[in-house]
Amino acid sequence: MPDAHVQNVNPLDLIFRPRSVAIIGASTDPKKLGGLPIYFTKKRGYKGKLFPVNPGAAEVQGIPAFPNLKAIGEPVDCVVVAVPANLALKAMEDIAEARVPVAIVFTSGFAEVNEEGRLLQVKLLEIARQGGVRVVGPNSMGSYDLTSGFIAHFGSAFDHHNGQGWPRVAPLAIASQSGAVGSHLMVQLRERGIGLTKWISTGNQGDIDIAECIDYLAGDPDTQIIAAYLEGAPDGKRLVAALEKARRAKKPMVVLKVGASEAGAAAIATHTASLAGSDAAFDAVMKQHGVARARSLEEFADFTAAATTGLFPERPEAVIVSMSGGVAALMADAASATGLKLPPLPKGGQDTLKKIVSFAAVTNPIDTAAPGMADMGILARMMEVPLEHGYPAMVGFITHLPLTASLFDALKPKLVALRAKFPDRTIAFSCYTLPEHRAFFHENKFIAISDPWTTVAAVAALAQMRQALERAPAAAQPVPAAAPAPRDVGVGEVAAKQLLAALGIPVLPERLAKNAKAAADAAAALGLPAALKIASEDIPHKTEIGGVLLNVATPQAAAEGYDTLIARAKHAKPDARIDGVLVSPMLTGGVETILGLHRDAVVGPVVMFGIGGIFAEIYRDVAFLSPPFGKDDALKMIQSVRGWPLLAGARGRPKADVNAIADALVRLGAYAAKYGDQIESFDINPFVVRQEGKGAVALDALLIARNQTQQRH
Amino acid sequence: MPDAHVQNVNPLDLIFRPRSVAIIGASTDPKKLGGLPIYFTKKRGYKGKLFPVNPGAAEVQGIPAFPNLKAIGEPVDCVVVAVPANLALKAMEDIAEARVPVAIVFTSGFAEVNEEGRLLQVKLLEIARQGGVRVVGPNSMGSYDLTSGFIAHFGSAFDHHNGQGWPRVAPLAIASQSGAVGSHLMVQLRERGIGLTKWISTGNQGDIDIAECIDYLAGDPDTQIIAAYLEGAPDGKRLVAALEKARRAKKPMVVLKVGASEAGAAAIATHTASLAGSDAAFDAVMKQHGVARARSLEEFADFTAAATTGLFPERPEAVIVSMSGGVAALMADAASATGLKLPPLPKGGQDTLKKIVSFAAVTNPIDTAAPGMADMGILARMMEVPLEHGYPAMVGFITHLPLTASLFDALKPKLVALRAKFPDRTIAFSCYTLPEHRAFFHENKFIAISDPWTTVAAVAALAQMRQALERAPAAAQPVPAAAPAPRDVGVGEVAAKQLLAALGIPVLPERLAKNAKAAADAAAALGLPAALKIASEDIPHKTEIGGVLLNVATPQAAAEGYDTLIARAKHAKPDARIDGVLVSPMLTGGVETILGLHRDAVVGPVVMFGIGGIFAEIYRDVAFLSPPFGKDDALKMIQSVRGWPLLAGARGRPKADVNAIADALVRLGAYAAKYGDQIESFDINPFVVRQEGKGAVALDALLIARNQTQQRH
Repeated sequence: MPDAHVQNVNPLDLIFRPRSVAIIGASTDPKKLGGLPIYFTKKRGYKGKLFPVNPGAAEVQGIPAFPNLKAIGEPVDCVVVAVPANLALKAMEDIAEARVPVAIVFTSGFAEVNEEGRLLQVKLLEIARQGGVRVVGPNSMGSYDLTSGFIAHFGSAFDHHNGQGWPRVAPLAIASQSGAVGSHLMVQLRERGIGLTKWISTGNQGDIDIAECIDYLAGDPDTQIIAAYLEGAPDGKRLVAALEKARRAKKPMVVLKVGASEAGAAAIATHTASLAGSDAAFDAVMKQHGVARARSLEEFADFTAAATTGLFPERPEAVIVSMSGGVAALMADAASATGLKLPPLPKGGQDTLKKIVSFAAVTNPIDTAAPGMADMGILARMMEVPLEHGYPAMVGFITHLPLTASLFDALKPKLVALRAKFPDRTIAFSCYTLPEHRAFFHENKFIAISDPWTTVAAVAALAQMRQALERAPAAAQPVPAAAPAPRDVGVGEVAAKQLLAALGIPVLPERLAKNAKAAADAAAALGLPAALKIASEDIPHKTEIGGVLLNVATPQAAAEGYDTLIARAKHAKPDARIDGVLVSPMLTGGVETILGLHRDAVVGPVVMFGIGGIFAEIYRDVAFLSPPFGKDDALKMIQSVRGWPLLAGARGRPKADVNAIADALVRLGAYAAKYGDQIESFDINPFVVRQEGKGAVALDALLIARNQTQQRH
Repeated sequence: MPDAHVQNVNPLDLIFRPRSVAIIGASTDPKKLGGLPIYFTKKRGYKGKLFPVNPGAAEVQGIPAFPNLKAIGEPVDCVVVAVPANLALKAMEDIAEARVPVAIVFTSGFAEVNEEGRLLQVKLLEIARQGGVRVVGPNSMGSYDLTSGFIAHFGSAFDHHNGQGWPRVAPLAIASQSGAVGSHLMVQLRERGIGLTKWISTGNQGDIDIAECIDYLAGDPDTQIIAAYLEGAPDGKRLVAALEKARRAKKPMVVLKVGASEAGAAAIATHTASLAGSDAAFDAVMKQHGVARARSLEEFADFTAAATTGLFPERPEAVIVSMSGGVAALMADAASATGLKLPPLPKGGQDTLKKIVSFAAVTNPIDTAAPGMADMGILARMMEVPLEHGYPAMVGFITHLPLTASLFDALKPKLVALRAKFPDRTIAFSCYTLPEHRAFFHENKFIAISDPWTTVAAVAALAQMRQALERAPAAAQPVPAAAPAPRDVGVGEVAAKQLLAALGIPVLPERLAKNAKAAADAAAALGLPAALKIASEDIPHKTEIGGVLLNVATPQAAAEGYDTLIARAKHAKPDARIDGVLVSPMLTGGVETILGLHRDAVVGPVVMFGIGGIFAEIYRDVAFLSPPFGKDDALKMIQSVRGWPLLAGARGRPKADVNAIADALVRLGAYAAKYGDQIESFDINPFVVRQEGKGAVALDALLIARNQTQQRH
């Protein structure tokens, strides 16, 4: 076990702000993997103790070196491993022996390469686990904290601009599974004038993963905004809990996640040995937790930079003020696509603007027309007037104006005054800038993004973040005591439906008939025409063996049907254990929907809702939520599918009982919140929704529990 | 009429390369709207004659001025109008009187403002038309040609960089309805090191529109690539013909079009008084003509810059070589989304790469791993090996490497050698660059784009352009002589179906019954059960009045049905002229599709195909083609809808007779090619497709011809 002084310290504190560090594989060459951390840490003025470990050198970059860890002879908080893969196991043994609590492993050649590498990684981590060593990596580009000055990093970016490549210090943290993506983001932000404090790359995530980093950063006083890149998550439930912790701490997050396509998923499997999960489920869970999702690197940097202004619109509404009518229209398209509303400027404001430029467009978007391009007083006033009318956000398109010094110099003081008058509003500009222009925007908390579509998308993302950050936490509903745990639910339809009934989710009345006579009686009692289905644990997919008979019109036909189904089942699967035949009344009308509960490879248990049948199959018209969630969330989920008009009563169709769906989803969500880890999948399909007030019923269901071996991975 | 010397000259030649020009409203202030064209034209060294017209000045910016046009006393090729709206009509009268063939009207305050402005514009153009003056604008930011030196433009961009804002001369032309968008694009390209020759903004397009510009540029020897921004098109058929002319001239085009959303469409209506049209139809027609469509300004600049390399992949295939595994996955997602294939590197190549870096990912995407980030020889070799294996394109992610001078200086000669070895391949880099780095990429015909997703999208766009540019032109099929012109097709279902029959598009057999007995006979003859429909020109929407009876089982029921329908029709519309009742056999099974022909506000006549019923209604699952097109195009269109699996025979469904749909679409396309202008809409819905070999039939159809007044607008 580590020494007493670090026993109650979060391992990430020791990674970012250790009092003493050793570098195994320390290089005398400050440009090499084992030399760069020493070079940068010295340069940054780290105040702790720095111990290079190199058996072949008495000193490294001017610092006394040690042949091995033990020779240091005093406690070390954190070790960086910068040796080749064949020496990494020995290094970890030394670390464990020296009772160092954390290790950052740069070394690659593990699970990201092949099965042999995977086994090597398992060994490495087992040594660490037994020695009580928490590990970042392997295959990590390290970490740094610009205020502690410990730069456990081998990227080249700090040497840019003739060695002046340090970004400014700011309350932003970057946690990236990929070191290159994290490094690229840092550079993009730095070039926009945006700084950070903490940076970490988790690599293969053999131990410490992005979820643990987010959890830590959610509680870190130096961090107000978190930017994360991830490819996979070993424990989705923990990831979602960390997102929720950040949300409750009111720390906005921007995330980039790849692997939406088959090719992309295959690429990340070879990169950091991660599983990609369902992109739609990931997307939904991010939205639910107020995390803005970027689609590529530029958007990642632009959204993150926008969040660092700390000004989030209190409503998803904005005014657009554009020096180009064409770009005004483009921005209106973007607002429509990203959910940013553009309420018209009130009449009084329109009149004021018309007095300034009679032929300007003054509703919203506002098009300044040519006078706004030539006279900076007019331009600034056209931005000021709508802000006076209360818009929480303004998005301005000022084209390449910053490149015309005479105009930009005239505009700047007016914009400073605008900021002073409206200190809390989100003010974003889309414009072409050169690096020298960016400080002005940054200092005035103006968002400056080149692309107008992305500018609007960033403002929309900020508004959605604020809404999500201010939402009260969803409480998990209690699960009825009568509902068994997944492992105690039997196999097959009958057992799954009993669970539904216990959860309070309506199920079509049915009886299990053990003989032909009982089938006829059941059909007569439950109502004709009837539906008959074979009931057997060993036949989960009944239609494939002809195990379903619909529209059975008479009790006599039901009796014959019983015999038919038993015969078919015995023929198709002679060894199948057959419970009998399920008899239920035929249900006519209503809309078929699907409810489901799945364990996603990245975000863990998710509840799914979709329009049923061919719509789900071909149009993938489904929506997701991470449990727990409330009824309002469920109603929003139902309304978010494209097929919503089918339920909403469009074109003379009856309005469906949406309330009954939402109620069932909440009950399913409660079960998911409690038992999601123990479930592989739970499908309720079809779940037929009748017209408003008439409820909804499950016609079929199937639960597949996870076995305990699966749960450990 | 203009003088003889310009009679056979294209008006756009006179706009770009006039021998003499006059500026009405010439200003002595070189920063004003009426001063900038003189200032820039002088500065650019225009060799023709320049006549400032200003009644209050003897000279303007050092050039002798004239009180009016007439006072010039010699022929003028082109006039720029830079006076306020209240003086524009008088100016145009003078231009007409002076027999000047073309005028560029900067003046705004016309159709883009309000109805009053629209009427003023009509007057302005009527004066021009009567005087034989072709007009650019009004509300235009003008035009320029960097080689003639005539800069009829009032933007500020040439004064950037301390007056060194001229882009280089290159065979690119920009035609933009919006001056600000066109100017922004020029600046973005210039900053990327990309030049152009011709630039024009058509503004309100009162006369010369983007279609005419494209048509001109397609034949212009100084133009190899065309970038166009448009909001609307007064004549879609002419626009499509211009696109086809550019395609046949093998001139790649990039287009930006806004107004996809309701808010965006409203914004362009107030901007240049254009109608937005259907975004999906526009998109399809651009694809069909090999035009790459950008979604925002950055993409517009990036795609255009990529096209200026002149290197278009001969197949939509590429290899990705990334310094980041995460970005490799992101790029694989982008390739999947944009239709760029990533075939695996052949085994021999993989072995070669494995020998260089044993733990690199070597299939495709290739992940260089850390050695590729540190050793430029390794990085270059990892790009060279796949190119040796024949990939037509390489997309490399080299993060912020250009900012590390020591690495970039080492890489540059290797990339120059790579270009020398593969002079015809598309080679694109995604990387963070500063302005000083861009010349290197440009000079070596390397594409350099910051965002990795956009980089992949640009390469995909280049490949699609090449495929489209190399395709043989589609020939219009002849329309059968028996098919009447739209104005000669009667109103209602019966007439529309007769047209279908004449076109050779199968129609369900039916008879028009004039009394109950005839209905019974028809039902018996055509096959039972039958379908009955009221037939009346005055009742186009039959179901709304209960005018359809389905599953009529007996001749007796058909006779009763006749009476029911007549009674319902008379009750609902007492004045309706009633032809009788249509009797047809009931059709069971098959897949409902929709075929249509619509006149789009931007691209003119388009043929539509979609999956029918609720799919078209809720999921908008439709595809478009501009006529003429061949059967191969029709088959691709059918396969492009999301509901294609419904026809393809997925999940045990019978395979549908896709051939029969394609055949009908081609016949509809031929009719559209001949008569598209004369049709408002022609819907064949449902068009029921039976299983393979069993054909398809139209169950209902409706044609709405355009009246001749409409055709003029």
